[in-house]
Amino acid sequence: MNDLPQQIGCLVRKYRTDKKISQEKLALLCNIDRSYLGRIERGEVNITVIKLCEIASVLSISPKDLLPDL
Amino acid sequence: MNDLPQQIGCLVRKYRTDKKISQEKLALLCNIDRSYLGRIERGEVNITVIKLCEIASVLSISPKDLLPDL
Repeated sequence: MNDLPQQIGCLVRKYRTDKKISQEKLALLCNIDRSYLGRIERGEVNITVIKLCEIASVLSISPKDLLPDL
Repeated sequence: MNDLPQQIGCLVRKYRTDKKISQEKLALLCNIDRSYLGRIERGEVNITVIKLCEIASVLSISPKDLLPDL
């Protein structure tokens, strides 16, 4: 459970780079700072479910795709 | 997106009652107040991903089961 933010962060980065979207663009579309998105991708933030779903929506994936299989 | 907490709250309540676990017991096992669990189930709280996964773990389900299909 402790490395959950890291696992989610890796998934956000994976889907973002797969879709060739920059941190700047994803952050802009999610209405968050680029630096905050960086912290999310590095697993430094325990984000809320609404933020998780907003990021998933912008990446055109299911929010379930951003959770690891536990 | 606005009714996401409500959708998650309904799923928490559904799995909890399916498994015949009281609010008191689930709250205790998740280290949260019963009143806070009540707020989660009523969709009044935008919980974090770690809390989502803790609740799923106690309910012996995947955290993905607590997210709606969006």
